[in-house]
Amino acid sequence: MPVYTAPLDNIRFVLNDVLGVEKLSTLPGYEEATPDMIDQIIEGGAAICQDILFPLNQSGDKEGCTFENGVVRTPSGFKDAYKAFTEGGWTALAADPAYGGMGMPATVNFVLQEMICSANMSFGMYPGLSEGAYNALHLHGTDALKQTYLPKLVTGEWSGTMCLTEPHCGTDLGLIKTKAVPNSDGSFAITGTKIFISAGEHDLTSNIIHLVLAKLPDAPEGVKGISLFVVPKFMPKDNGDVGARNGVACGSIEHKMGIKGSATCVMNFDGATGWLVGEPHKGMRAMFTMMNTARLGVGMQGLGIAEVAYQNALNYAKERLQMRALTGPAEPQKPADPIIVHPDVRRMLMTGKAVTEGCRALAYWAGMHLDIAERHPDPAQREAADDLVALLTPIVKAYQTDMGFEIANMAVQVYGGHGYIWEHGVEQYVRDARISLLYEGTNGIQAMDLVGRKMSANYGRYLRRFFHPVGQFIEENQADPAMQDFVFPLAKAFAKLQQATAMVAQKGLKNPNEAGAAASDYLRMFALVALAYMWARMAKAATEKLAAGAGDKAEFYDSKLKTARFFYDRILPETDFRFKQAMAGADSVMALDAAGF
Amino acid sequence: MPVYTAPLDNIRFVLNDVLGVEKLSTLPGYEEATPDMIDQIIEGGAAICQDILFPLNQSGDKEGCTFENGVVRTPSGFKDAYKAFTEGGWTALAADPAYGGMGMPATVNFVLQEMICSANMSFGMYPGLSEGAYNALHLHGTDALKQTYLPKLVTGEWSGTMCLTEPHCGTDLGLIKTKAVPNSDGSFAITGTKIFISAGEHDLTSNIIHLVLAKLPDAPEGVKGISLFVVPKFMPKDNGDVGARNGVACGSIEHKMGIKGSATCVMNFDGATGWLVGEPHKGMRAMFTMMNTARLGVGMQGLGIAEVAYQNALNYAKERLQMRALTGPAEPQKPADPIIVHPDVRRMLMTGKAVTEGCRALAYWAGMHLDIAERHPDPAQREAADDLVALLTPIVKAYQTDMGFEIANMAVQVYGGHGYIWEHGVEQYVRDARISLLYEGTNGIQAMDLVGRKMSANYGRYLRRFFHPVGQFIEENQADPAMQDFVFPLAKAFAKLQQATAMVAQKGLKNPNEAGAAASDYLRMFALVALAYMWARMAKAATEKLAAGAGDKAEFYDSKLKTARFFYDRILPETDFRFKQAMAGADSVMALDAAGF
Repeated sequence: MPVYTAPLDNIRFVLNDVLGVEKLSTLPGYEEATPDMIDQIIEGGAAICQDILFPLNQSGDKEGCTFENGVVRTPSGFKDAYKAFTEGGWTALAADPAYGGMGMPATVNFVLQEMICSANMSFGMYPGLSEGAYNALHLHGTDALKQTYLPKLVTGEWSGTMCLTEPHCGTDLGLIKTKAVPNSDGSFAITGTKIFISAGEHDLTSNIIHLVLAKLPDAPEGVKGISLFVVPKFMPKDNGDVGARNGVACGSIEHKMGIKGSATCVMNFDGATGWLVGEPHKGMRAMFTMMNTARLGVGMQGLGIAEVAYQNALNYAKERLQMRALTGPAEPQKPADPIIVHPDVRRMLMTGKAVTEGCRALAYWAGMHLDIAERHPDPAQREAADDLVALLTPIVKAYQTDMGFEIANMAVQVYGGHGYIWEHGVEQYVRDARISLLYEGTNGIQAMDLVGRKMSANYGRYLRRFFHPVGQFIEENQADPAMQDFVFPLAKAFAKLQQATAMVAQKGLKNPNEAGAAASDYLRMFALVALAYMWARMAKAATEKLAAGAGDKAEFYDSKLKTARFFYDRILPETDFRFKQAMAGADSVMALDAAGF
Repeated sequence: MPVYTAPLDNIRFVLNDVLGVEKLSTLPGYEEATPDMIDQIIEGGAAICQDILFPLNQSGDKEGCTFENGVVRTPSGFKDAYKAFTEGGWTALAADPAYGGMGMPATVNFVLQEMICSANMSFGMYPGLSEGAYNALHLHGTDALKQTYLPKLVTGEWSGTMCLTEPHCGTDLGLIKTKAVPNSDGSFAITGTKIFISAGEHDLTSNIIHLVLAKLPDAPEGVKGISLFVVPKFMPKDNGDVGARNGVACGSIEHKMGIKGSATCVMNFDGATGWLVGEPHKGMRAMFTMMNTARLGVGMQGLGIAEVAYQNALNYAKERLQMRALTGPAEPQKPADPIIVHPDVRRMLMTGKAVTEGCRALAYWAGMHLDIAERHPDPAQREAADDLVALLTPIVKAYQTDMGFEIANMAVQVYGGHGYIWEHGVEQYVRDARISLLYEGTNGIQAMDLVGRKMSANYGRYLRRFFHPVGQFIEENQADPAMQDFVFPLAKAFAKLQQATAMVAQKGLKNPNEAGAAASDYLRMFALVALAYMWARMAKAATEKLAAGAGDKAEFYDSKLKTARFFYDRILPETDFRFKQAMAGADSVMALDAAGF
């Protein structure tokens, strides 16, 4: 049976020792978010994830969701778990107190998201989608819409969805066909078919609030003619109850590779009543509000799966006895040694450890900047933080989901043939993780976002938000003998990244295919340098703690230094390879005619 | 719905233009295996794979195998397909004419295996396992055993298995507990439990012949005390009919991630009657006969899945309309351009193409040497070929399965969210491919075989069987201007491989953990150089054909040169990265105590 224990020590290390989470409580509105309070919340989140959500993960995969006569049933236990989740106030954690939220920083919510995704990624889809709907309404809805919907989304009594994709378009939303025709009362009649709608229909809440992209009759062509609407499953009454059924129904659910506890629905809108959110034809902007939060959320799925997969691989590697250590029996009293003694197994485990911990630091760092962008009193600081988050979003989404999948696969590999069997639980992580590379923009689309939008934005201003702190860190620490093993490889990889950035930007200006052909490898390079930066900061924090006398935590901090060394030895060298790929140009990529394949 | 067309042009290119398959008919016993005959056989194989096996692939996945009261049922249609397969003589293809076989070369069988695995990997397990059993009996069985079992295995009337793994041991077969106690009549009573037995029980054949590893009462400890036995499900009668049921039964079947049409059985032997195959306590040697064939066969699964996944990704990329080309609309009359215009999609497709075609050349090259090793009149040539096959076996197994999985995942990525849905058929390739990295020795075990056994064997003699022809090819072609783009990067990567070989061997002598920590990355390096060699040979063949005036095949040969360029631009640079990883040493891999993880 799979295991999961929330990695609280590692989470605390990143929050307290590396990122200085105490800064959050100096931000207006986050005064209560002291390190102590945050720690209490995280402990509470760990408990519900371990005790309530995790035990339903395998059974949810086995049972899946069912669809009958328009009704979707979630797997056994999900209803009770959702009740416990909402009663614990977890849907309210980062929501606006004006609508009943707890008003905690995004950083804290990121930690919760990681733990939820480790424990039960399918379950996490339901509150996750509600959060996207909440964000869109909170930022773009009228007061009346906010008063009607937000309090119910915050308590979790109602849930939300994002209805974007249609059968013929996912990435290319300019092609959508769903229509919105004005009614006489200011509402709109929405008609069309949406597919891949996570949590589109289910039995967890008394109402489901769809955020739907559609085109008004006078809409311009393409993405400039898309508007956003809120379409409830049941019409809300003034007293907060639900009224008549609206003209929206689930047509079927998909049979998917994984996240089988999450209902992926075909939603048919047949003259359903909806209300405009934001301005007409400006739906893409509001949609990106949902999308960017969602992309970071998907990045957290990668981290969550990586963590739980790593934990299981480690657990198995300590228990499974097979062959003797190459240097002679390690546990001669046993019939064979635990496989953790074997260098190739350790290589996999260390990779899992180094990547997962690096991704955690990167993700929480992005989370902290989301909070600064939201709440810092200085507009310049807000802008800087917002830029950094914009830059990091495609990197966090693509790299962390790539790694979630890779480490889930490593876990299967550590298990050997047993990893292929459902009962052991690790092949589920591979299947569940696989979607995260695809939805909310495939990882290729993330790479295009990075090189196409983020790289050039404001003459490279977004890039500088990352390059400056990294450059500064290198400068400040390169003379420190204790830091040289970490700072030197970071500096080398960073220089390569800057070189690649200049080249990709330059070549891309002349021929956009050059940027497109380099995009995915460039993103990977960027992510590796970002992780190298986070590992250098972690190494610095650990070194300082050890120098100050870490007591019984000395082994913990020492393991950070050893893991950092592994990262620089074994993982960072991928940068050079990706550099060569990104620099190879578009010629050989584009040379063949479609018919020549 | 997924598509598959046997890639006959690409297969012919490798066989005829690159490897010179006509050489096979000069080997004693293979006189009939002329290029024309081989081509006819391959066309026949393509037909059964496309028309009979492929249409059952998705339905087989959906339905899976069922287990009830000890009886295993294969998915609907498998029985008829197996009948057609045996009636077509496909189980007899490479078998000894003395037992009813067609006596075709292994090379031809490799081509068939590739196509079977593209069409229906699950189905392929049944004849595949029979082949392993056939080989073990053919090489190590007594005449009486051969007369009893081989003709039935060759017609496919009976099938075979390999019963190695037990619950507590897979890799470490020295730990097996299954016992063989001598009966008074020269047979043995076999008792024990075997797990993960592919085709252990099913409804395709009238008898199932288990090749079982077990320990005799006087067996020495460990792998030196293992013997091999043949244990039929039904006792064979002298007239070839089946008699009484033997004491072996299926206890359950596994619920697996993929290859659901293949029954993976727990087999309980309860005093079952068996006969010794080979010498007492020398079962590992006979077992390796099965294993090595099986490892190459698993490598072909990787190739087969890579090919079919690539074909589907390509098909989808030509049809799916989404966004405009970065350089302006490619098909302005359509609502959007086919996604094959996008550089990042092409990067994935070109990777699929370059890797798949490279692996095909490598695999068939190994197949040709299997035939030379078997039939060449000159013992020195036989030995040389046998050495090369021994060297290439772990590389073909590990790299080709890694790539099968990677390209199946690329196909899913090209499909975007649709790739995650069962109906489209590509996520099945990911699930099916996943096992190939695990069974017949995990890919980590293959790497240990390469650095631990093959590298040092006979003072590096195995290595020289590869290094010499590659070095010679470089020397012969480096002055040819048409070949420089291919030979130079090959020479550079080859030099790195030689350097890494010397370092790994040297460091491994002092500390075996050094070899272990480098093994997987070293194997990957080796595979990349092997592919670079194959691509250089393919480029040379294509260049020669073009120079000779290729007529309406000019575009075909030109696409080989373009794909070769992509390989050297984008794929071969991984060699440097793997070099750095392999050279990074064992320190950071082994630094943490098990408790420090």
